[in-house]
Amino acid sequence: MTEVDPPIEIYWVSGSPFGWRVLLMAEFKSVPYLSHRIDTASGKQKSAAYLALNPRGKVPALVHGNVIIGESLAMMTYLERLFPEPPMFGATAVEAAHIMQICSEFVCYLEPVINRLSTAISRNKSLSAAALTARHGTLHTEFERLNELLQKSQWLTGNSLSAADLTVYPHCKFLLRLAARPAAVPLNLGLSDFADLYPDLTTWMQRFEALPGYDKAYPPHWRETG
Amino acid sequence: MTEVDPPIEIYWVSGSPFGWRVLLMAEFKSVPYLSHRIDTASGKQKSAAYLALNPRGKVPALVHGNVIIGESLAMMTYLERLFPEPPMFGATAVEAAHIMQICSEFVCYLEPVINRLSTAISRNKSLSAAALTARHGTLHTEFERLNELLQKSQWLTGNSLSAADLTVYPHCKFLLRLAARPAAVPLNLGLSDFADLYPDLTTWMQRFEALPGYDKAYPPHWRETG
Repeated sequence: MTEVDPPIEIYWVSGSPFGWRVLLMAEFKSVPYLSHRIDTASGKQKSAAYLALNPRGKVPALVHGNVIIGESLAMMTYLERLFPEPPMFGATAVEAAHIMQICSEFVCYLEPVINRLSTAISRNKSLSAAALTARHGTLHTEFERLNELLQKSQWLTGNSLSAADLTVYPHCKFLLRLAARPAAVPLNLGLSDFADLYPDLTTWMQRFEALPGYDKAYPPHWRETG
Repeated sequence: MTEVDPPIEIYWVSGSPFGWRVLLMAEFKSVPYLSHRIDTASGKQKSAAYLALNPRGKVPALVHGNVIIGESLAMMTYLERLFPEPPMFGATAVEAAHIMQICSEFVCYLEPVINRLSTAISRNKSLSAAALTARHGTLHTEFERLNELLQKSQWLTGNSLSAADLTVYPHCKFLLRLAARPAAVPLNLGLSDFADLYPDLTTWMQRFEALPGYDKAYPPHWRETG
């Protein structure tokens, strides 16, 4: 990687799907960057220094000289413009639209459900039967749609890896890891036979995990805690 | 407008902020299109013909020959690629990132709150005190952030109109219109003095409403019912 001056700096939290997207984008595009892992347990994302970067106190953030960017999709857009190869937001109008469609659908439908369920599991909280039923329905409907897409092509939007794959993968991995915890049992998510229910989605995840750069962006504390 | 072959067809619902974004994009870029207004009261969006276009039964949709696109941001992306002038998603990397950041923040934070409140008003339903307090907080925090941005520049991401303005404006107008209904009184949204609370946001809305093309995309049934 050639150095960039000023350097591109990425602030991220280990295991958070949002920062993971950005790290994956940087790795897959061979972007040189300074990595700043934020320890949210110590509340560093609420420190004055960090709030000066991102007034919402949200992680990730990307800093490049006096440019400060929040929101993972915006950071990915920035990296795409500075490092166009390989294209991750589409080489043609049709590709660009389909990639944005998958990203938008994921952000609107599946992501909020995964966020809600993962918070419940990690804080060992219950959800009402009604809330659980609604989320269970969305979860499996959306996994089924993704699985169908992957029956037609290697990656979510065709035969090239795109920002859609980078947007969807981290949340899927994140949820499946949490779903294996004892605290997930009462939620009855129906994910223990994920590979049988969604074989194409499973193969896609394995394909993703074999990409060069994947290991470097892997959440380090997951290696430590298994 | 020069004709396009095959034509670009836009399916939309009068008064829905999502389709309004796409119509505004088409108007501001002078895109020639066939307009298909969908009457959701008759359930046409759940007809077999429409579901063949968009299996989610969501409106808007854009059809261009054998290309079918769902999700407003994806349709706007498509129009941007086919009709690059004037650029709405940024001429530079920094502009592109900031536009995507404002769009993402809006979609994640303010849009769901506006959707929830507007559903409550239009169906004359109440919300629990806790649900209302949380949403009231987000609503005003986010309006305040938008107002602050507009103290610095004419448009949300600088001195050129962008996709960020087109993403944010329709929901703001939509909510303010509903907030004037008697059914909104019990929700106590604190929007009756919107212009005093958010003067820069108000001026921005007026500036937006003076743009050529605005009238053509204005929800027709709002003219009929006032």
